[in-house]
Amino acid sequence: MADEPLKHLMKLLSKLPGLGPRSARRAVVYLLQNKEVLMQPLAHELQRAVENIKECEQCGNLDLTSPCHICAHPVRDRKIICVVEDVADLWALERNSVFKGLFHVLGGTLSALDGIGPEELRLKELLRRVENGQVEEIILALNATIDGQTTAHFVADQLSGLDIKITAIAHGVPVGGELDYLDEGTISTALQSRRAI
Amino acid sequence: MADEPLKHLMKLLSKLPGLGPRSARRAVVYLLQNKEVLMQPLAHELQRAVENIKECEQCGNLDLTSPCHICAHPVRDRKIICVVEDVADLWALERNSVFKGLFHVLGGTLSALDGIGPEELRLKELLRRVENGQVEEIILALNATIDGQTTAHFVADQLSGLDIKITAIAHGVPVGGELDYLDEGTISTALQSRRAI
Repeated sequence: MADEPLKHLMKLLSKLPGLGPRSARRAVVYLLQNKEVLMQPLAHELQRAVENIKECEQCGNLDLTSPCHICAHPVRDRKIICVVEDVADLWALERNSVFKGLFHVLGGTLSALDGIGPEELRLKELLRRVENGQVEEIILALNATIDGQTTAHFVADQLSGLDIKITAIAHGVPVGGELDYLDEGTISTALQSRRAI
Repeated sequence: MADEPLKHLMKLLSKLPGLGPRSARRAVVYLLQNKEVLMQPLAHELQRAVENIKECEQCGNLDLTSPCHICAHPVRDRKIICVVEDVADLWALERNSVFKGLFHVLGGTLSALDGIGPEELRLKELLRRVENGQVEEIILALNATIDGQTTAHFVADQLSGLDIKITAIAHGVPVGGELDYLDEGTISTALQSRRAI
């Protein structure tokens, strides 16, 4: 049993995704054993992020500045907006660095169970961007989950009256994937979306 | 890709046991989404722990004070010292609250591979405590690993000249354990350590 301040620290750490009470305890011991090289810098970086990171008013990305470095980038293609669920998805696409347009973070998916309706998502902001701007294409890059796809259809529906192209990223067999290990949903989607070569 | 301060934060978080680059990324997003209730308190608690938690000069526990609250406790049995590998093991025994004696944290195990010899452990401190004090029994509560048991033998050997009882915690079938799921080492240890009922 650790004393009170350490217990509080463990409790906070155990709330992080991927950490439970046990791993939070191990993390605290590890932090205390590496005070100078890990614990102090971590406390410092967290505080710095708390004070400096803000949500981009345009796309919803998290960055030091608003508009973020992507929205403010001089050569990115402003005619294409890629719609993602959350910032982690935006980062995943940026790591790939194939996409050179702008982003729009919805901040979640529609979910009747969790009580998340259109009002909770950054949908109005997306419509405003499309109406105001020179946008020609919206790419829906939502997760291939039920909630993700429901949201994709809803967003497509909202945008349907406007004179823009609406596309969605392809679903199918992941690169390197073996059919034998894939679920039936993926296989049937891949079959239906087959293309001539 | 996230910007530089966030990347640094992810890198620090990914060094925690149980977190990798991917889960560190998820943790950063989660922290930024819960700035007020999680990120700010976590930064604060880490900083407070960095500044206030010290190693108990007597037993090696981590606490706000040195001697720690266990060593300074008025009614704990000073005649029994339980020797553990690290602070997490001490906490595990304290959560149980069956043991009412004092502790001694070795700070690791002997390991030829990792270059950890007797000098790296808090062995001299243990000998000094035994020589100075009213200690009557040393309980070796080291992990049932090869390194843990090697260290237990070494510590027992070092203490053998002194007029104290040296014991080790029992190894056997864990409570609730089913024989079918246990490894052969545990089963043979449990058989050899059988006792009359």
